[in-house]
Amino acid sequence: MSGSRGFRSNHPCVSMQSARTLQQLLKRSLHHPPHPQQLSAGIIGAPFSKGQSRDGVESGPDRIRAAGLLDRLQLQGCAVKDYGNLTFEDFVLDEPVRGSKRVRAVGSANQRLSEAVQTVKRDGHTAVVLGGDHSLAIGSIHGHAAAAGPLSVVWVDAHADVNTPLTSYTGNLHGQPMSYLLYELRSKVPELPNFSWMKPCVSSRDLVYVGLRDVDPAEHYILKLLGVKVFSMSQVDQLGVARVMEETCDYLWERAKKPIHLSFDIDAIDPSVAPATGTPVVGGLSYREGLFITEQLCQTGLLSAVDLVEVNPLRGQTEGQVHSTVSTAVDILLGCFGRLREGNHLLDYSLPEP
Amino acid sequence: MSGSRGFRSNHPCVSMQSARTLQQLLKRSLHHPPHPQQLSAGIIGAPFSKGQSRDGVESGPDRIRAAGLLDRLQLQGCAVKDYGNLTFEDFVLDEPVRGSKRVRAVGSANQRLSEAVQTVKRDGHTAVVLGGDHSLAIGSIHGHAAAAGPLSVVWVDAHADVNTPLTSYTGNLHGQPMSYLLYELRSKVPELPNFSWMKPCVSSRDLVYVGLRDVDPAEHYILKLLGVKVFSMSQVDQLGVARVMEETCDYLWERAKKPIHLSFDIDAIDPSVAPATGTPVVGGLSYREGLFITEQLCQTGLLSAVDLVEVNPLRGQTEGQVHSTVSTAVDILLGCFGRLREGNHLLDYSLPEP
Amino acid sequence: MSGSRGFRSNHPCVSMQSARTLQQLLKRSLHHPPHPQQLSAGIIGAPFSKGQSRDGVESGPDRIRAAGLLDRLQLQGCAVKDYGNLTFEDFVLDEPVRGSKRVRAVGSANQRLSEAVQTVKRDGHTAVVLGGDHSLAIGSIHGHAAAAGPLSVVWVDAHADVNTPLTSYTGNLHGQPMSYLLYELRSKVPELPNFSWMKPCVSSRDLVYVGLRDVDPAEHYILKLLGVKVFSMSQVDQLGVARVMEETCDYLWERAKKPIHLSFDIDAIDPSVAPATGTPVVGGLSYREGLFITEQLCQTGLLSAVDLVEVNPLRGQTEGQVHSTVSTAVDILLGCFGRLREGNHLLDYSLPEP
Repeated sequence: MSGSRGFRSNHPCVSMQSARTLQQLLKRSLHHPPHPQQLSAGIIGAPFSKGQSRDGVESGPDRIRAAGLLDRLQLQGCAVKDYGNLTFEDFVLDEPVRGSKRVRAVGSANQRLSEAVQTVKRDGHTAVVLGGDHSLAIGSIHGHAAAAGPLSVVWVDAHADVNTPLTSYTGNLHGQPMSYLLYELRSKVPELPNFSWMKPCVSSRDLVYVGLRDVDPAEHYILKLLGVKVFSMSQVDQLGVARVMEETCDYLWERAKKPIHLSFDIDAIDPSVAPATGTPVVGGLSYREGLFITEQLCQTGLLSAVDLVEVNPLRGQTEGQVHSTVSTAVDILLGCFGRLREGNHLLDYSLPEP
Repeated sequence: MSGSRGFRSNHPCVSMQSARTLQQLLKRSLHHPPHPQQLSAGIIGAPFSKGQSRDGVESGPDRIRAAGLLDRLQLQGCAVKDYGNLTFEDFVLDEPVRGSKRVRAVGSANQRLSEAVQTVKRDGHTAVVLGGDHSLAIGSIHGHAAAAGPLSVVWVDAHADVNTPLTSYTGNLHGQPMSYLLYELRSKVPELPNFSWMKPCVSSRDLVYVGLRDVDPAEHYILKLLGVKVFSMSQVDQLGVARVMEETCDYLWERAKKPIHLSFDIDAIDPSVAPATGTPVVGGLSYREGLFITEQLCQTGLLSAVDLVEVNPLRGQTEGQVHSTVSTAVDILLGCFGRLREGNHLLDYSLPEP
Repeated sequence: MSGSRGFRSNHPCVSMQSARTLQQLLKRSLHHPPHPQQLSAGIIGAPFSKGQSRDGVESGPDRIRAAGLLDRLQLQGCAVKDYGNLTFEDFVLDEPVRGSKRVRAVGSANQRLSEAVQTVKRDGHTAVVLGGDHSLAIGSIHGHAAAAGPLSVVWVDAHADVNTPLTSYTGNLHGQPMSYLLYELRSKVPELPNFSWMKPCVSSRDLVYVGLRDVDPAEHYILKLLGVKVFSMSQVDQLGVARVMEETCDYLWERAKKPIHLSFDIDAIDPSVAPATGTPVVGGLSYREGLFITEQLCQTGLLSAVDLVEVNPLRGQTEGQVHSTVSTAVDILLGCFGRLREGNHLLDYSLPEP
């Protein structure tokens, strides 16, 4: 974890508009964002698709690697360890439970993923989970919290993924992970097979959503009931992404600076940029807004794990659509590890003379 | 009308940046935006195309209905009454008058539309006029004002549509409706056949334009002469759409809170999103900005009639282009009736327990 | 030059958000942006491609003219003189020098361009250089400074183009022009054949970059070392383009109001809009942001020369892509000469009466 490696880790989102008081300004000026050379990525492939019904999302991890993720991370100075792809147990008899589909497979896969993330965190890396569908967040966040303690969760997504098994229209678990993870929803979630290994580990006060624009009525009810901090696309339009990220950081840090878990669903990005995904929704974040979010979270020095999920190459209608989606996913991950659009140079660079 | 149904109707555009004084803040906090369940839509199809020269725009109303407008309005809790499509008198001899084309047809159609809008308003609905071309705004706004009294008009469009019959390059009446409607231009507009039923009914001080980017020199002269409030795309870029909508509301309410007539030309939206229209212009509003405008106007509680015009399925080069244009039109209308991107839930919703 | 023709020339970027003090507000209200009728364009075609390796960019000037640039400038009231296309000396033996390619051709072409720009400036026009590749900025800026004295340079580009011959990965001079032009880099640039006619003429304090998102490590080092003012796409996302332009103007005018040289690489604009260029980079300026930049610079009254470079029709995959790129280039140039999206009318316009 970054904290244990001695990083100065509490540089907040920098914004000239944000420095409302001198005190804030001073506090912020004392800290420095991490240089890519101070970061290391521990990469887990999670080729899992049973949290939803569309083939293809299990090839996400390999496509993201094939687009050069590891080389490009190293090129910008970041240390990288690839933990390879997880394999998941097959369940021949996995009948729906109270309408929820493939519960045993999802429960088992997430248990395995939780253990893998714990290993990566104990090895001292920032964990990167390449999905696979978004039901993986159950194990990823659980494992992260098991290794690192209480977390802040930033959930960037078109969807809230907070249906309970009892409110879901589809029964797909990729639309439900946050309901399993939130303390406050414990009594609303029935016991399911292969989920006994986990307990809720996130407080609704430590959760921030960014990018929502397709929220079911039950989800909306839950978010309002719990008072979850939500920046839907309306709020992004209202405030601008810079202010959204500033308020996100301010909100998460009001009580304590916890390690941040970023769970990034590629469908948060507009389908004109990232169409190769299972449930695209118009009116999403621009590529630039997506990058800005990662740049800002990286600069906090607290980013401790990242999920990048729902890249589904089979959902692209052309190779260009797949390429655009995958390369956006790569750029989002590079942003999480210190890449800046203004450029980067290694700490020991010197300019050649004639 | 919303006012007559007892809605608390003066909640302005909410913006954290906007609350410049405590007084404003207090004033605003006393009111609530309407819930979709408190709204009812009275839908008029106006398949009229004689205000311009391109076939296809007359199929707009049916395409917008076929995309599920009515079902989706009802699904979000809104009451809906469909008044069907108007039929318009045909004029075999409709020679140009001082260069203006198909004047008799346009005059007659708008008289019929004015009456239909009056009926819808007297029935207590928010009127929705599905075009058809933008010359329909003459009858729509006239009918609205006849039933509801003095109006505020928010005109969202790439074009100002304020040429007089004497300044128009093309002679198409869809580029002229505001010149017939503005008190201040009365002396500049010659008497035309089939227009004797109407008189100007809008003050230039009650008109706000949003999205302009293709304005004729005469139109620019008129807008400057009358001091009309204009947010061209330059101003949208300068201020951001949130501030534009805040200033729009503040401006309209300086004198009195009148019912709002929103006249939304789909060509206000960028052609990358809404290409199936007669006169597309690059550099338009994004889908998100379009939705934001409707969300904000709905939240005023004053939105009393909406035109959605110039969807022309024949102008799409692919079915995808038509689909994108039509579904954008639907989403704009849903936004006018309370749909929020953060989600909505019915007032009596309760969460199921295991 | 505008100054010599008696224009009131110091109206800064207008921004309601920007007028932080009454003093600023008063200062700004005393001046007026130039009307197109007060401007004249002297157009030089520079069909040069030897600063990089892709065929096609030499046809940029003719394609931009064929899209109606001259007519449209005149239509908005601007005087226009076309100085035609330059012809450039061919160098059969032009072996790389210390890795830099086609140095003799680039040096010779830029000498010729510098002389042409000096002629245009002495004739009293705002110079317009239609590229061709961005190595042309060497001659364009040199000639401009030779005729007009010390300049401010606004460089709008995806790339910083400030590699020295010793840091360039590719050896292409279109990635190096700013290193030849900056006083501060003089000792870092070796002497090259056909470059003895020129000396550095720009201070790093008079240079502002907008739009950067693909910056080499050496370039990043240089920009940080010299403290160059950079608005990368991160900053554009952080501040918004309106604030970027306000800060650009404020920064350039802190010391003195020098004539502005705008060097606009079409690849600053996002490839979804302007794909027909040699080195497109995702995440660029929107069409609207591009236009806003030119509108604001024009309104300073100080815009004295413009390069529009790197339009390469052969790099478009469809005619639609070429058209979009070329027409964006034209619109950028119209914005430099007073076109406003809110419309324009001639100074002597009057409204016809019935």
